[in-house]
This record gives sequence, structure tokens and C-alpha cells, in this order.
Amino acid sequence: MARNTHVPADTAAPPVTAILAKFVSGHAARGWSDAVEHEAHRTFYNWLGCAIGAAEHEAAGAAMAAVQMLEPAPQATVLGRAEKVDMASAALVNGITSHTFDFDDTHLKTIIHPAGPVASAVLALAEKNGNSGRDVIDALVLGIDVACRIGNTMYPDHYDRGWHITGSTGMLGAAAGCARLLKLDEQQTQMALGIAASQPVGLREQFGTMTKPFHPGGAARAGLMSALLASRGFTASPRALEAPRGFVQVVSDKRAWNEVTDELGSRFEISFNTYKPFACGIVIHPSIDACVQLREQGVRPEQVEKIELRVHPLVLELTGKKEPQDGLQGKFSVYHGCAAGLIFGRAGEEEFSDAVVTDPRVVELRRKVEATVDRSVREESVQVAALLKDGRRIQVNVDHAIGSLEKPLSDQQLEAKFGQLVEPVLGERKVRAITDACWSLARAADVRALTALCRP
Amino acid sequence: MARNTHVPADTAAPPVTAILAKFVSGHAARGWSDAVEHEAHRTFYNWLGCAIGAAEHEAAGAAMAAVQMLEPAPQATVLGRAEKVDMASAALVNGITSHTFDFDDTHLKTIIHPAGPVASAVLALAEKNGNSGRDVIDALVLGIDVACRIGNTMYPDHYDRGWHITGSTGMLGAAAGCARLLKLDEQQTQMALGIAASQPVGLREQFGTMTKPFHPGGAARAGLMSALLASRGFTASPRALEAPRGFVQVVSDKRAWNEVTDELGSRFEISFNTYKPFACGIVIHPSIDACVQLREQGVRPEQVEKIELRVHPLVLELTGKKEPQDGLQGKFSVYHGCAAGLIFGRAGEEEFSDAVVTDPRVVELRRKVEATVDRSVREESVQVAALLKDGRRIQVNVDHAIGSLEKPLSDQQLEAKFGQLVEPVLGERKVRAITDACWSLARAADVRALTALCRP
Repeated sequence: MARNTHVPADTAAPPVTAILAKFVSGHAARGWSDAVEHEAHRTFYNWLGCAIGAAEHEAAGAAMAAVQMLEPAPQATVLGRAEKVDMASAALVNGITSHTFDFDDTHLKTIIHPAGPVASAVLALAEKNGNSGRDVIDALVLGIDVACRIGNTMYPDHYDRGWHITGSTGMLGAAAGCARLLKLDEQQTQMALGIAASQPVGLREQFGTMTKPFHPGGAARAGLMSALLASRGFTASPRALEAPRGFVQVVSDKRAWNEVTDELGSRFEISFNTYKPFACGIVIHPSIDACVQLREQGVRPEQVEKIELRVHPLVLELTGKKEPQDGLQGKFSVYHGCAAGLIFGRAGEEEFSDAVVTDPRVVELRRKVEATVDRSVREESVQVAALLKDGRRIQVNVDHAIGSLEKPLSDQQLEAKFGQLVEPVLGERKVRAITDACWSLARAADVRALTALCRP
Repeated sequence: MARNTHVPADTAAPPVTAILAKFVSGHAARGWSDAVEHEAHRTFYNWLGCAIGAAEHEAAGAAMAAVQMLEPAPQATVLGRAEKVDMASAALVNGITSHTFDFDDTHLKTIIHPAGPVASAVLALAEKNGNSGRDVIDALVLGIDVACRIGNTMYPDHYDRGWHITGSTGMLGAAAGCARLLKLDEQQTQMALGIAASQPVGLREQFGTMTKPFHPGGAARAGLMSALLASRGFTASPRALEAPRGFVQVVSDKRAWNEVTDELGSRFEISFNTYKPFACGIVIHPSIDACVQLREQGVRPEQVEKIELRVHPLVLELTGKKEPQDGLQGKFSVYHGCAAGLIFGRAGEEEFSDAVVTDPRVVELRRKVEATVDRSVREESVQVAALLKDGRRIQVNVDHAIGSLEKPLSDQQLEAKFGQLVEPVLGERKVRAITDACWSLARAADVRALTALCRP
């Protein structure tokens, strides 16, 4: 009956569903280096800030209004909001808000945003069940490893085909994390992964709409429910990931199974996670970084005659908008990004608000920015020169922008970003308390001390 | 950035998301022939019987145990069970039970089982909101039209690729049906379809596990939530179905857009829906039908020397198990099916129980069944001869098995099937009451009169 027109079925795939189930259920608690442990805290903290920051966005409002039609039980916190809802709905809404500003973490090898689906599911379940912070960090590391390893197996074909890979691998990471949290055994974990495999969420066509952030939310919800079902004896194929009509082969022609097994349990994909310093597409991050550095060198907007950029071709292709009219258009304007960086020393969600994008001072400066395509400049780099009215020329070259793997945000910079996101929603006092709770999460006896802080 | 290895993107696709949204939101209530109207009632009735019949199956028990962990509000009936749950969970569980016995309706052009996702979502929402039976039938016809037309657009490539097409088109049908029920306008309906497009549910690898019936349930849930989200202003791509990185192009190389638009609003896909008389794979239906006919001609098991079948090759390939050991194996044995047909005159779920499959009387008769492959016999046909101990030979040739489009189950036969499924769960009195309520559904002022009958 097989009439496949795409690449032939791989009937000799290794049993990766079983392998991952054994790994997730059996790996030791905190079975990794201090660096991995610290990165897990950074990932969690960055995710939490993004989710709280978007709590009052209209996407969150629409999602909550729909969820309230189910009259949900108050089991888990909607981060940054007063309402509690059932844990599956909390996973959904927190997954949505964490990706709404496009400001969350990025596993650069696959451009998966892994915390959205995994942390949203894990924290909601942990809050319901009163798990410890240790349990949550373990579930987060292992869940993200599952999602990103399956991503590595299929990237780039799967993404090129049109799948929004965050939501189409995230349900596996969420299922793995929740299975771990529920202490499911190897076989039940295999079933949880299997049930989740039937539920990828996400098309790239949705970019620019609320359904883009819905993807990690939907994946979080699907993964959480898959683990609950498996815990109650629901069954799935034990080869749901690797079989010829299983997940990977159905949604990707690339099937690099070794990406699941290589260094499993010793290399952790969360090590390759990065955090955006600027609330816009990554392609203009080097330019903004350079302008922030100009500001740090004492350059003031009123001194500037001209800012000259030499950029990779993609920069103008994707973010070449000269005269953005509102906040959203500002995210697609390297000119605006540079002006914000030089004036404010940052480019968070606030600097992409309508008010800032139309601020005459910002408009004046961005008209002084000129960009030239230079094919010798790499995507992660930029060359920027400030020509001042007094005739000086100040040059800043960025090889790797802040927020890249080579030049990660410091913990302090993460805290600054968190504050920018959370302070408008919960106030300064809670920013401090939540920050402390996040850095010491692995020592928390019960995560409900943290989630209680995340409500207004 | 596009590195697609599969067929090139179709950038000239017609706006099928908008076309279907206009159709679903704008088509007149009961805007079809009496035949379509009657088929809608038959589809609903058959679906309801299947769902109630499997209410106590272990898959239903496991799903309910997981759902109860959400402490759901008692909004909607779990068909055949005492518990009520929130409407989204009811859609999930009723979708699961309706497909658990593999006994539900089949749109033969695509082998979609359309009622599972569509009716499960629509009835749960209608019960919550107190809609009329007229509203439900309208939503069912339109929702099934959407799911099956998208199925026609992609079949067979999408199915061959490994998608379980019932769940990977069903979320669109469920979203359409629920959008209609909520009286969403054209634009909101377009958003509902768009949100649903990101959530296909189903891999063929899951066949033989509980996740197979999970697919229509998950699709029902996803479609219902998509409509609720759209009703609250959640947005999606207006071209989510047809864009190069939209649903159809991502999951299928076949994109016969005319299948969406041809005769839209005058030809209804529910007209091509069929109902199984026997609780097993369709390939052995002709053989069972023939043996039921032998019984009707007076042949008794104790008279039989031998039963000779001439069958299409697929019959032995898929259902050639000579000595099935339990109920499930019985479904893959044409020998058992024939014995059940001759002894009981039927082959419902009960005749595929462990008890019947191991009954010595059944075992003795099925050992007298011999099957020969004959390439001149078509898949929907069979030639059967009973050789009796008195030397007589009685021949029955079946061109089209009962339950096919050419020889559909009569309403009376559907009622007999319904009784077999529902009587053990709810008792004989309710069988009669629910049957009456289903045949007159379009005249019911409030569907809650019907759902109240569906609880023990």
C-alpha cells in the first residue's frame, strides 16, 4: 500500500523511543556538571521573565478568555496574572506568554525555543503536585535534551518543510519532563513519548500571528497530558518516534539518529541554549550591540552626524525598514534598533513600543543610520562607525553579538532583562524576590513558594 | 533559506481557508437535500452508538483517569458514563471511545472516520451551550464537509506518508463545526480554521494501541479549543491551509485544491459516509456478509463439511490468522469472521470477544473454513461455497458487502448495531429512547434532552 513519494522508509532505525525513555526515567538527579546546572537555572529564569512580561498582552487575554470557558479548577498559576487555572491550561497559557515577545531562549543549532514547551508544562505540573525545585530542574534539563536531540535529528529539513520546530518537537520535551516529574518508569515514559509523538504543534505560516506563540503553549499542554495519560495506563507505539510511519520519518526526510544517541547523558543540549538581549530578530543583534558599545564609549545622540553600518546581506533583506510606523515594524528595522541602542543602551520590549518607535528623538537619530551590504561580513558580525559632528570617527566591530554562544549574557545582564520584563507587571519588590528564588531554585523544597510570588 | 527536498511550494494556491470560512459561516441552515439530512442523522446515530458502546473500555478508563487529574467542571456528558467533565475533555474522551472499537463511520474516498472528531466536539459544545438539534446537525454536515474536502485534497499522499488522516484533518472539521455552532462570523471562522491547522493529530504507527482512537479525540479537542480561541479574538494566518508553509503543503505533496471548491455547497461529503456492520477491518466484510447470507438460507453449523472462500489477495495478507487466540486476534482472522457470521448471523464487538473467539463451537467451525486467493476477485467481493454433509453445495457470491456505498446498512440494521453496542452499557429502555431522540434530533429544542439519556 506504500506509495511514498518522498525519501524511502528507514526500517533499520535504532529504538530511540526506548533509548530516550530509559534515559529520562533512569538518569541520576543532578547528573551533570555545575555548568549545566547553572545553565538550567538561567534557562528557567529567562523563560519566567518572558512569560510574566507578556502576561497582559492581548494574546494572553484572548487565550485566558477561551480557557475560562472551561471553568477550570484553580490548580496552577498563570504567571503574572491573578487567575489560577487547571494545570494543562496553565501550561498552555504560560507557553503562549513565554513566546509572545519572541524574547525567549534559543537553541541555536536548531532554532528551537526549548523552555517554552518544557518549562511551561513542568512548572504547572510541579505546582499542582508540590514538587521540589530539584525535581523541576531535573525535568527541565532532561526534557530539553529530548526536544533538542530530536530537533538535531531532523534539522534543517523538518524546519525547511514548514514546521515551527519549537512546537513540533516541544511536545516530546514536555512529555519527557512531565514523565520525569511524575516518576514514571521506563515503560510508562516510553508510552508518554509515544502519545506525544502524535501531537506536533506548529506551522511557520503562522509567524506574525498569535498562533506562533500558541505553538509552544499547545506543545506544553500536549506533552503534559501525554504524561498524565501514560501514568494512567494509556498506551502508544513503543516505536512511535522511529518507526517508518512514526513521528520523525513522517515529518522529516533527514533522520540523523546518532543525534539522539551521541554522548547521551554526558553532553546536554541545554548547554547550547542562548538568551536574547534584544526583543527582535537575531539578525540585527550585532548592530544593536555595537551601538550600545558606542554609547558606553561616551557617544551621545546629539553628537552624531552619521552612523555607518557594514552588514551581512540578510540584515537588509529581513530588517531593512527605513521608516517603521509602529512597534512591530520597529522589530524589522535595523535603523530603529541602532537608534534605540545608542539612545537607551538597550532594546527590550519597551524600546519596540509604538511610543518609542514614533518618538521624534528616536526618529531623528535613526534617519542618520546608513547601512551597506558587505558580503565579507558574517551573519553574526557587523562593522559600525559613528561619525561625530566634531569630525571624530569612532569604530566598533562586533564579531559575535552579545547573547550568542561565544558571548553569552552574564547573569547580571539576564537580571537586567528580567527586571525590564517583570517590573511593569509585578513591581520592583517581586522582581528581587523572584530573582532570588530562581537562582536558588534547586534548593527549594516546594516550587509553590516561587509560583506564589508570580502573581500580582 | 528554503531548502525543501520535497515537491516545490505552490505559491498560486487558491484562498481555501477563506473559501471554507465563508462556506461554514454563511451556508443556510439545512441547506441540502433530504438525503443529506437523513445521512447526517445516520452518521450521528452510528457515532453515538460506538461511543457509548466503548464507554467502559480500558482506554476510556485510562483517559478519564487522566482527565480527572484536571478536576474538570461538569459541563458535558461522557457518553455512556456517569461522570461529566469540561466540554474540551468530553470532546477528547468521546472522540476516543467512538473509535475504540474501529466500528465507526468511514468516508471511503479518504478512509477518514469523520464523525469522531467532528461530532465529539460539536455535541460537547452544544451541550454546554444548550444548542438545538438543528444547530448540531448543521455543524456536523459542514464540519464533516471541511474535514473530508481537505482529505480529498491530500489523499492518498498524506495517508501514505504515515498520517492517520482521521485525526490530521479532523481538527479542521471540529473547528469548523464548533465555529458554526458558536455562530462565528466569516473572519473568526477563518481564524478558527487557522488555529486548528497548526494541530494535526495522528500517526499510523500508533495503529493497534490506544493512541489510535486518541487521534479523533485529540482532534476534537483541538478543534473545539480553536473555535473558542477564535471567538475570543485569538489570531492565526488567514492562509493557514494553503500557504507554502501552511498545513496542506507541509503535510502533503498532493494538493488538489479543486477538491475544496468543486460543487462546494451542493455536493456534501457526508453523502459518501458508510457504516460498518462488522467490528473488524473492512477487507473481511464480504466474507462475513456471505456467511450471514448462508445462515439466512438455512445453513446450520452442524451441517457444514467445509466452507470454501475465493478471496482477493489482501484478505489473507491482512486477516489470514488461522488460529486466533483472543478477541483482538479474531479481528485479523477471516476464518473466525466467517464462523461468527454463520453461527450468530452477526459479527459485532461481542463476537470478537475473547470468550467467543475461544468458544469450542466457534473453533470447530472456523477450522472448516478454507480460503483461496483468486486475483479475479475484487477487494469488495467474495465467492463463498458451503459444502454440506448431505452432499449439497450452496454458493453465495457477494459483489459489494453490506455496509458499502452500493449496499448501505438500512436504518433498521443501524438500529440493530446500535442496540448491540448500547444495550450492555445503558440497558434496553434507553436504547429505544436514544434511538427515537436521534432520528428526531433536528427537531430537538435543546440537545441536553438527548445527552441526559446517554448516562447510566
